[in-house]
Amino acid sequence: MNYRTVWRFISYILMVEGIFMIPAIIISLIYREGSWICFFLTILITWLFAGVVNLLTRKEKGGFYAKEGLLCVGLSWMMISFFGALPFFFSGAIPSFIDALFETVSGFTTTGASILLSVEDLPRGILYWRSFSHWLGGMGVLVFLLAIASVGDRNQGFTMHLLRAESPGPSVGKILPKMRDTAKILYLIYIALTVLDFIFLLFGRMPVFDALCTALGTAGTGGFGIKNDSIAGYSTYIQWVCTVFMLLFGVNFSCYYLIIFGKARSVFKDEEFRMYWSIVLVATILIALNVSPLFSSIKETITHSAFTVATIITTTGFATADFDAWPAFSKSIILLLMVLGASAGSTGGGLKCARAMLLLKSLKRNIEQTLKPQRVQVIRVNERVMDEKIIANTNAYLAGYVVIIIVSFIAISLDGMSVTTNFSAVIACFNNIGPGLDAVGPTCNYAAFSDISKIVLIFDMLLGRLEIFPILVLLSPTTWRNK
Amino acid sequence: MNYRTVWRFISYILMVEGIFMIPAIIISLIYREGSWICFFLTILITWLFAGVVNLLTRKEKGGFYAKEGLLCVGLSWMMISFFGALPFFFSGAIPSFIDALFETVSGFTTTGASILLSVEDLPRGILYWRSFSHWLGGMGVLVFLLAIASVGDRNQGFTMHLLRAESPGPSVGKILPKMRDTAKILYLIYIALTVLDFIFLLFGRMPVFDALCTALGTAGTGGFGIKNDSIAGYSTYIQWVCTVFMLLFGVNFSCYYLIIFGKARSVFKDEEFRMYWSIVLVATILIALNVSPLFSSIKETITHSAFTVATIITTTGFATADFDAWPAFSKSIILLLMVLGASAGSTGGGLKCARAMLLLKSLKRNIEQTLKPQRVQVIRVNERVMDEKIIANTNAYLAGYVVIIIVSFIAISLDGMSVTTNFSAVIACFNNIGPGLDAVGPTCNYAAFSDISKIVLIFDMLLGRLEIFPILVLLSPTTWRNK
Repeated sequence: MNYRTVWRFISYILMVEGIFMIPAIIISLIYREGSWICFFLTILITWLFAGVVNLLTRKEKGGFYAKEGLLCVGLSWMMISFFGALPFFFSGAIPSFIDALFETVSGFTTTGASILLSVEDLPRGILYWRSFSHWLGGMGVLVFLLAIASVGDRNQGFTMHLLRAESPGPSVGKILPKMRDTAKILYLIYIALTVLDFIFLLFGRMPVFDALCTALGTAGTGGFGIKNDSIAGYSTYIQWVCTVFMLLFGVNFSCYYLIIFGKARSVFKDEEFRMYWSIVLVATILIALNVSPLFSSIKETITHSAFTVATIITTTGFATADFDAWPAFSKSIILLLMVLGASAGSTGGGLKCARAMLLLKSLKRNIEQTLKPQRVQVIRVNERVMDEKIIANTNAYLAGYVVIIIVSFIAISLDGMSVTTNFSAVIACFNNIGPGLDAVGPTCNYAAFSDISKIVLIFDMLLGRLEIFPILVLLSPTTWRNK
Repeated sequence: MNYRTVWRFISYILMVEGIFMIPAIIISLIYREGSWICFFLTILITWLFAGVVNLLTRKEKGGFYAKEGLLCVGLSWMMISFFGALPFFFSGAIPSFIDALFETVSGFTTTGASILLSVEDLPRGILYWRSFSHWLGGMGVLVFLLAIASVGDRNQGFTMHLLRAESPGPSVGKILPKMRDTAKILYLIYIALTVLDFIFLLFGRMPVFDALCTALGTAGTGGFGIKNDSIAGYSTYIQWVCTVFMLLFGVNFSCYYLIIFGKARSVFKDEEFRMYWSIVLVATILIALNVSPLFSSIKETITHSAFTVATIITTTGFATADFDAWPAFSKSIILLLMVLGASAGSTGGGLKCARAMLLLKSLKRNIEQTLKPQRVQVIRVNERVMDEKIIANTNAYLAGYVVIIIVSFIAISLDGMSVTTNFSAVIACFNNIGPGLDAVGPTCNYAAFSDISKIVLIFDMLLGRLEIFPILVLLSPTTWRNK
């Protein structure tokens, strides 16, 4: 294991994190809030630590392989969460450090699960940092570094391993031959869509600061709101803007690249793209039919159904309606969408449509093979034969998913909350959604859990966002043995 | 598809089913109950149907492959359930035919989920048939036919495909070179253990009829009781006899074969055997620690904890305590044991320890392979390399399991019961356990569900007992196309 290169890379990541806290200072100063000093202090500490690490790892050498890539991603997410939690702690916005860490990990992993009872009294600088963590975590902070810096240029394998470890989905699409260019294109699309969302929100007469935070939270499919009732208090127009942009951020970003370069036809033929939009449509109709007696007009019914489907399938976690009070059928569909998640290569979490499709196809093949054991059968996606390694990996991923859900579910059940609360809390954290059902429903929060349960849920959020392997590598004793 | 041979085999199965109803007539006559006429009528109808099918399929020919084996198993389980439900329906014990079918499928699949509000008023003949269906379904009715009849002698493939399709677990161990001898040995061990259980129960001064029904229900790990409070009203001695025998019936039967023939050492080294007993021990201790405040003495605590762990892990479903009222931590462990299930090659249901172990090993390998992509790694069980086909199959099985749970969960949620009720009902039916949590907890039953939900749960029970594939083949349109 090449620890030097890993730590050197992390020192760069932390420097970038410090830079991203500067806007929080500016916002704090604009609104004449005392919290600017907390950010200032955090930046100093972060840069000091990063500087020392950087100095100590000057003589880095040795190869960089898949293992190093995974460790690098896992460790840097832990580090940015630790330093990212400091402003919450220093400012007294969140007095317990475990709580502050929970909130920060929830931000970076774009979960949006909160332990705060009320967010409206928080300083604007803190609110900005909370929403910005979604934006940075959505596309990935390592991907950002690779896109802007020359740090990965000398070694294509280095960049590839990092991108693969941080990007969601069963396989990473190489849009351009050079991975750095791919990272750049992804971030450009991401920034453009965020700006577009921001402008549309301003058109709806949303205050600039609200629009900024909402756009950042939507882009990362995060879900931290700056109002206690999330998006419920805004106009129907704004709710629809959120619905549409949440859904757009749940699409595989390579689709946008293809559309820009005139290959829209191949996008509309893409199996995952079709599956994603079909599920959104069907789920919205089913829920609308089921909840229609609760609302006074068809318009209202469809607004809330579409918003809820969008916020859940993209794992954002904004809320306009308390879906925990909806009938059992709608709640079951919502639980299903929680597990399913958005598209691979988007900022959304969950299992991902592409993975669900592979699992279904692999199941179908298994049935056919039981019937005709002689015939060798391949799995095709978009008319291309899938690599058997990706299929085996996807099946093992599901097994890991199930094991993590079960272990976490048992662990947090020691707090004595209801089965529905515990189960939906684990599902909502692992899939980076935010609100669950019952005591962690859209109108409630995670404050009631014990510190141990919060630590379990912190790991669930990280495991979900980084898709299990980087965190497992971090926790594996063999990673830390024999240099 | 060779339909003739399939139907011819089913005609034999139905004849055997008729023969097994004769004791019910005798019991009815002994206790001077009018229900004997219902069994008499059912036997007549069943034999008439079987006779006609047998005549129509006299000129059977053609090969018998995996596909035919699966169809044969799936279809014959549907047929025996249909004819097995008739006595409940004719006698008026269960006025709705869907309910009668639910109860019968619950019997044959050894689920033990009941729609009856009170069982103590039922005629003894009906109670016997209810418990006997567990015994027959536990080891498998097709396996029984293969063991006693020469029907499979001409073709080893025929017997192999049938045994493989009906027996639980990821792979079928060939104990003896001839499959018919294997089936015989399995049934002899099964009968011997059942008789032993019966004798031990009689020692506890249990009435003969109660002991018979309880032994049959324990052997099949079924769970239908003949008292409204299941086993709770019997002495602690009887409860411990049930605990021990439930656990013994949850062991892979080839272990007993090996012990009888002096190979006990290899049994104690068997990974699944060790895993099964370790989980039983650990779960009992954890639950006992968690529920100890609810009971007055340590003895009582351990009795109820051990009984509950045994009844759940072996998927039997007897009850001595209302575990739905236990703390969340115990309930979560119980839900986990429900999913896990007993050993492969036992009469218990669930995922099976062997399968869970394979999934964990496959997950571990996947992590190692992500770290060292170059190295080819094999999975070993009991120091032998596992066939990759079995591993792929097990992963696909898990995918199927998850899909079925999700679809059923959504379907029955239309009835508007709580999320915990719906989720645990599906888990309890698919894993052939019986009682779930909340509205389907150990003191409640399945009567409140709608007919549509009951049909969904009937399919779940069959899918669970036959491990998905035979029922899927039955429902697949390609099975019924092109002769």
